[in-house]
Amino acid sequence: MNRIKMILDCDTGHDDAIALMIASKHPDIDLLGVTVVAGNQTLDKTLPNTLHVVQHLGLDVPVYGGMAKPIVKVQEVAEDVHGKSGLDGPVFEELRIKAQPEHAVNYLIRTLMESDGDITLVPVGPLTNIAMAILLEPRIVNKIRQIVLMGGAVGIGNTTPSAEFNIYVDPEAAHIVFSSGVKITMMPLDLTNTALADESVIERMRNIGNKAGKLFADIMSFTLHSQAVNGLSAGPVHDVTAVTYLVAPDLYETVDAYVQIDLSKGPSYGRTVCDIYGRSGLEKNATIGMKIRLKEFWDLVEDTLRRHI
Amino acid sequence: MNRIKMILDCDTGHDDAIALMIASKHPDIDLLGVTVVAGNQTLDKTLPNTLHVVQHLGLDVPVYGGMAKPIVKVQEVAEDVHGKSGLDGPVFEELRIKAQPEHAVNYLIRTLMESDGDITLVPVGPLTNIAMAILLEPRIVNKIRQIVLMGGAVGIGNTTPSAEFNIYVDPEAAHIVFSSGVKITMMPLDLTNTALADESVIERMRNIGNKAGKLFADIMSFTLHSQAVNGLSAGPVHDVTAVTYLVAPDLYETVDAYVQIDLSKGPSYGRTVCDIYGRSGLEKNATIGMKIRLKEFWDLVEDTLRRHI
Amino acid sequence: MNRIKMILDCDTGHDDAIALMIASKHPDIDLLGVTVVAGNQTLDKTLPNTLHVVQHLGLDVPVYGGMAKPIVKVQEVAEDVHGKSGLDGPVFEELRIKAQPEHAVNYLIRTLMESDGDITLVPVGPLTNIAMAILLEPRIVNKIRQIVLMGGAVGIGNTTPSAEFNIYVDPEAAHIVFSSGVKITMMPLDLTNTALADESVIERMRNIGNKAGKLFADIMSFTLHSQAVNGLSAGPVHDVTAVTYLVAPDLYETVDAYVQIDLSKGPSYGRTVCDIYGRSGLEKNATIGMKIRLKEFWDLVEDTLRRHI
Amino acid sequence: MNRIKMILDCDTGHDDAIALMIASKHPDIDLLGVTVVAGNQTLDKTLPNTLHVVQHLGLDVPVYGGMAKPIVKVQEVAEDVHGKSGLDGPVFEELRIKAQPEHAVNYLIRTLMESDGDITLVPVGPLTNIAMAILLEPRIVNKIRQIVLMGGAVGIGNTTPSAEFNIYVDPEAAHIVFSSGVKITMMPLDLTNTALADESVIERMRNIGNKAGKLFADIMSFTLHSQAVNGLSAGPVHDVTAVTYLVAPDLYETVDAYVQIDLSKGPSYGRTVCDIYGRSGLEKNATIGMKIRLKEFWDLVEDTLRRHI
Repeated sequence: MNRIKMILDCDTGHDDAIALMIASKHPDIDLLGVTVVAGNQTLDKTLPNTLHVVQHLGLDVPVYGGMAKPIVKVQEVAEDVHGKSGLDGPVFEELRIKAQPEHAVNYLIRTLMESDGDITLVPVGPLTNIAMAILLEPRIVNKIRQIVLMGGAVGIGNTTPSAEFNIYVDPEAAHIVFSSGVKITMMPLDLTNTALADESVIERMRNIGNKAGKLFADIMSFTLHSQAVNGLSAGPVHDVTAVTYLVAPDLYETVDAYVQIDLSKGPSYGRTVCDIYGRSGLEKNATIGMKIRLKEFWDLVEDTLRRHI
Repeated sequence: MNRIKMILDCDTGHDDAIALMIASKHPDIDLLGVTVVAGNQTLDKTLPNTLHVVQHLGLDVPVYGGMAKPIVKVQEVAEDVHGKSGLDGPVFEELRIKAQPEHAVNYLIRTLMESDGDITLVPVGPLTNIAMAILLEPRIVNKIRQIVLMGGAVGIGNTTPSAEFNIYVDPEAAHIVFSSGVKITMMPLDLTNTALADESVIERMRNIGNKAGKLFADIMSFTLHSQAVNGLSAGPVHDVTAVTYLVAPDLYETVDAYVQIDLSKGPSYGRTVCDIYGRSGLEKNATIGMKIRLKEFWDLVEDTLRRHI
Repeated sequence: MNRIKMILDCDTGHDDAIALMIASKHPDIDLLGVTVVAGNQTLDKTLPNTLHVVQHLGLDVPVYGGMAKPIVKVQEVAEDVHGKSGLDGPVFEELRIKAQPEHAVNYLIRTLMESDGDITLVPVGPLTNIAMAILLEPRIVNKIRQIVLMGGAVGIGNTTPSAEFNIYVDPEAAHIVFSSGVKITMMPLDLTNTALADESVIERMRNIGNKAGKLFADIMSFTLHSQAVNGLSAGPVHDVTAVTYLVAPDLYETVDAYVQIDLSKGPSYGRTVCDIYGRSGLEKNATIGMKIRLKEFWDLVEDTLRRHI
Repeated sequence: MNRIKMILDCDTGHDDAIALMIASKHPDIDLLGVTVVAGNQTLDKTLPNTLHVVQHLGLDVPVYGGMAKPIVKVQEVAEDVHGKSGLDGPVFEELRIKAQPEHAVNYLIRTLMESDGDITLVPVGPLTNIAMAILLEPRIVNKIRQIVLMGGAVGIGNTTPSAEFNIYVDPEAAHIVFSSGVKITMMPLDLTNTALADESVIERMRNIGNKAGKLFADIMSFTLHSQAVNGLSAGPVHDVTAVTYLVAPDLYETVDAYVQIDLSKGPSYGRTVCDIYGRSGLEKNATIGMKIRLKEFWDLVEDTLRRHI
């Protein structure tokens, strides 16, 4: 089997870091590049955070800085969840590596246009980079194999009662992506909030004994406590579920539906309105992850972390 | 114990009829009157439907016709769920009784203003009557003991992906009620969709052997099939859960939260945005029913139906 | 010629007081009653203000208190324009007369339903009373001869850049009235801002020598200065232009158009969107006063004030 | 005096063509480049239209194709005003010249970043190109000397009763530009609708006797009749007023104000809400052209057209 070509688009971020650990070492994934966007924190934090993880784990993957601001909405970050640095918890050495000089949006356009249409995008932050690439070069729509993203909520949000963070902070970008015609699979909060790394999961990964296992443990130990604001008793590894879907879709229960981004400026601004029962009669534009088999999921995470140095 | 004085405000409607059967005969409830509003169907159908149930079961309760149209929104009815008559299924004799000449809104104002502040309102349709009464005579706010209503959704709606029917068809009325300062308990779809009358429940009630049991069975046999549009395999008795809450609140798990009605004209118009995790920091204005113990609930329904002729 | 039966609906208010002076004494007008609404100030000020004018001028007209709050919007008053009392400037004796016990909304419904369909409503404040009457008794729509109102703007507003005060403070009420099917003529800011009582107009009316002339002068001397916020160098008698239209429509240039009330919660909330060029293709629902011949207008005002004691 | 460096951003279009004729030959203007955007018609028409004008008049200026679609809104074009080709009326030879290979957005970013901050942008179509450049490279904000644009309306719009075409078709782009911090001067409909090329103006320009005069006449003869939809009896040369402002600002009366783009999805979507009276207290972000001295304006147009071959 050919490896799955993917580009990770992230706003590192705790669970982003773990998503990167999985994407960079899973044997079935060919991680072409990592594009970074503002989200959990401002770009001047998410970009170094990403580079720190790459350097710390000795990964061989180019990193591209992208959009520093949402398209229309005033910027908001998630300092309450991810801390001042955007990746509070682990301590890294001084940064010795650099991001590529090319802008993430241009990298996405160039790479996709030169491809055979076999690249999957996995955005696990706000969709600003992807939306801007689609706006600037609409022909990439036919070049993207699929987008598998972490974002949205069928039920309750985590940033407002209606909206999930990644979509909430740049709803217009999400609208551009969801109405682009690209095949989309989304991992909403309803699913990702079940992928909880509690003390036992954290110990299990730490016990792997390598740098990656230790980094997982350091990261999720911080998240263990910061998630109380969402009524959770342990830290969810939201973004990881988007990466693992690529290699183990059979672990997921999904439903296809028309998903509309609420662009009203009311209390549901940024909501992913999921027409699960097909009430609208509109064409289904997304596959929504509803459930994930957790035992196999954690096995897959552990197996992949073991492949790190 | 003094009986609980209540006024039922309904848009009969299948589950409305059953709510009326419970409210009119439960020994702990003193049903003062029934006010009728447009909702499941137009008022020229919901009013006679209500009178038919009263006549059929020989109830001694005054019925008042109220608002025929929503406050701002263009009228929509639920013919797909309740049929052309708004109460398709059972067959009634010709109507011999009449509604009271007083308008439901004026009846509500007069009755509340003359009361000692001990009357509970139980609206199980759109909130148009209640909202109009509050607008026309704001002093009733301090006269209403509490409002226990069926309406809204924490998660997915049944009319749009965002909104539940009762709130959706008159969101401005709901906004007026939810922002009035009256103590509100709401039974959302998330709870009411679990109170499903399947074949076995229907048979159980029919076997009571009286008119009420037969009417329950005739009504819910129709509903059994009309709910497929909401992904349900049996008919929920939504409205009944608001009435039984008055006499058996201990059957319910609830959570207090700030609930905002989405008045934007976007895809979440009419959504009850429930701030379950207290993200907004705004004062909690509603108690939300989250779960109900179904065994005791159905026992309570059966016991009450048995008290009918 | 039969006199024109009218009901004045006002939120007295400076120009409201003058509108009342004209409506109560013009020989072609039969002023049946005055209904009062919150607007320029709260109802506990606009109602006594109205009674003060009635008492001061010895008018024989019943006054009815109405809605104290807008239907959906949070209340805002115009203290910057009308002062703390809502009618700052003139000094009145202690109030000896009282409002009628009937609610303005019920008075409107009763009077219209008992009429031959020959009553014109002249609302010169927020449309809350009229909208509530239409909601509570939709049959009055066919009983209202026409509504001639002061409100809205074709161009720039005076409360927000988009909206005029009367419409802005209760947009939902305006929507209910404008979409009711009643024949509507509106006097927008664009016209009413040209009806400016400068020093010479004020002197002319004071020189009439009666109480009404003096009251006009006392009122408009105050307004002379409070209107700078709207870029005006003298005080407009907005509301008067709605009353005089009844008896001298030939003084006006008008255009028929579809007028939609902006109910979005954005920066144009409360705007009267006037489709002057028929772009929407929607049925025209209003006649809009675009220009008024000022010389004849002021003559008409003076002539009518002279009829007072 | 140094010539004013400018880039024209247009969606040619009738008045765009004339704006280009002025910008390319006025002695005080150094036209660096022309960027083209979808607007009056789709990009596959506005780009060739622009090239046709350049070729026909033998202009020496590079042309760059830009954004083919609005950022968020579904595309709408103005076929009713500009015809099927977007520049109906004049007949051109076959196109022999080509647009530059660089995308207009990248050209804008590169040119501005390499500049000394002395370039003025003159967008006379939708603001999509400019907004995308600001999004992709926010540092250009400090490199743009000023933006002088044609767009918006203080009073009534020409596409909806609230909105002018250029802003209406991409309101989010306009929002990005107006909230960017760049110094903005806008020529709204209220002004541009007075710059009417009637039969006498058309004859005057034709009588110049050169290609440019004839092209002006051919173009505006078509527009003469297409503007009836906006209640005009002759064709306005909207876009030209933005170019002439650069070299003759003293012909204009202006006012500074806070201008907000209405992004609600209601009937005022795309309106330039102009806070002329400073009601909002928000910082003024635009200079609005209110009046133009027409005699000198047409002299300036004629003088400049005479400089063409």
